[in-house]
Amino acid sequence: MKVIEHIGQMQETSRALRREGKEIGFVPTMGALHEGHLSLIRRCKEENDTTVVSIFVNPTQFGPTEDYERYPRDLEGDSEKLRSLGVDILFFPSVEEMYPEGYSTYVEVEGLSNHLCGLFRPSHFRGVATVVTKLFNIVMPHRAYFGLKDYQQALIIKRMVRDLNMDVQIITCPTVREVDGLAMSSRNQYLSESERRSATVIYRTLLRAKEALERGEDFGTVKTLMVETLSSEPHVKEIQYASVYDPESLEDLSQRQREDYSGSEVLLAIAVIIGPARLIDNMLVRLRD
Amino acid sequence: MKVIEHIGQMQETSRALRREGKEIGFVPTMGALHEGHLSLIRRCKEENDTTVVSIFVNPTQFGPTEDYERYPRDLEGDSEKLRSLGVDILFFPSVEEMYPEGYSTYVEVEGLSNHLCGLFRPSHFRGVATVVTKLFNIVMPHRAYFGLKDYQQALIIKRMVRDLNMDVQIITCPTVREVDGLAMSSRNQYLSESERRSATVIYRTLLRAKEALERGEDFGTVKTLMVETLSSEPHVKEIQYASVYDPESLEDLSQRQREDYSGSEVLLAIAVIIGPARLIDNMLVRLRD
Repeated sequence: MKVIEHIGQMQETSRALRREGKEIGFVPTMGALHEGHLSLIRRCKEENDTTVVSIFVNPTQFGPTEDYERYPRDLEGDSEKLRSLGVDILFFPSVEEMYPEGYSTYVEVEGLSNHLCGLFRPSHFRGVATVVTKLFNIVMPHRAYFGLKDYQQALIIKRMVRDLNMDVQIITCPTVREVDGLAMSSRNQYLSESERRSATVIYRTLLRAKEALERGEDFGTVKTLMVETLSSEPHVKEIQYASVYDPESLEDLSQRQREDYSGSEVLLAIAVIIGPARLIDNMLVRLRD
Repeated sequence: MKVIEHIGQMQETSRALRREGKEIGFVPTMGALHEGHLSLIRRCKEENDTTVVSIFVNPTQFGPTEDYERYPRDLEGDSEKLRSLGVDILFFPSVEEMYPEGYSTYVEVEGLSNHLCGLFRPSHFRGVATVVTKLFNIVMPHRAYFGLKDYQQALIIKRMVRDLNMDVQIITCPTVREVDGLAMSSRNQYLSESERRSATVIYRTLLRAKEALERGEDFGTVKTLMVETLSSEPHVKEIQYASVYDPESLEDLSQRQREDYSGSEVLLAIAVIIGPARLIDNMLVRLRD
């Protein structure tokens, strides 16, 4: 595995690969790799000639009071995992080279960024859209892979790619879960043993909400059920959101008639604070006709 | 000359050119081509294998009260000029395809966009940065050419390309002038005969300011001289700005000591309203040590 730390060298490498007619697949990550990341990388390897993985804890997507400093970093363990998967290139740039003095350009996807996580993490998605644009321009991939655990992120990146006519295909992959259903996340490391047990309430809430939708409950009832289920768990310090959403516009549907969505998909999505960790999860459910 | 109207076809063409190892040069325009544009195109032809010119009057860079509707459009005359110069591809997309329903992604270069024209045309440079990003992603050029008459635009695009790591070289070219010194602009067409004569005051003001700087006048005095010279012309309805600026930060230097800029370049820049036209011009002047 080649490790590249400099932007210019990565661009030169990608230019050369493209000249040779190689198809480049790309998995951008913030490191602290878990099975969710690895599933993206495996799919990427299957579909491309060259697989590039980036590890970059991107400061512009963290708020001033968030966990940028303590976000888990484990380059050695990550490198070992990437090597054993047969990744071709690890791109590992520095913050100083990604955001040099005088840096001032940002990409913003309006509308979609003002729902769900965007309400609680102002400028988070601006940071995401900006760094993904930069990484695409540096790595020049044919295909890029994103996990659906970050549903809103994947939706925003697809919209950005479409709007800005970026010449890259976005491929989204299913959420990978622990045996007890907890969605894999680098932030699960923040949890104590008892918090970790509590965290399963997120997936249980999604399942209960799905069942409720399937037996015909209306959206308002489902939202109430979700909030109640989450609240029953003492380690849940805050429910940032928990409801039924339009999977394209991310509009909260709890005041809307479920008849308008017959035969369509809706999104169940949750963000909660458990102990020191902000955890998110979601599930798409198709309503019967 | 091949005329391409659709984004997908342009991208397919550029991909094929790149696979063949051809270097693509690109001149983005809003049409109503004059000698300024043609000088960019000639330089582009000299330095690249394939020359692509776009004509797109970009709605997102016009304010609601500005001249988007009446901006001059002359596809037939423009095509004739492009053909006679030996341009390879004219890219002529529709507004509907560039900004489809639900369009919501914008690129913003902070700081630089809040000076000079940015003060009088809020969101103008956001529109410029966004459409240039889109056009670069569609045309995939190795080099792109911009005129220095729009100095602030060229500076913002260079900053954007650097910040977002776009793999394109930005080449800026000198302002082309009429015999009497008026900078060529598609908007000069808006002027009546007497307004057209008045408009030469812009270039005369730049020359007088340059002489004043060269004889050692301080920045405040030069600004006053510029405003007085412009005001003396009855057709000048409004002076939006006229002063000495830092050519990198665009800061107004009229309150600053000229000793701090000994041996450096400063920017003289003007925006005025004459009759129905908003006209801009500028000049770089190197101060003696």
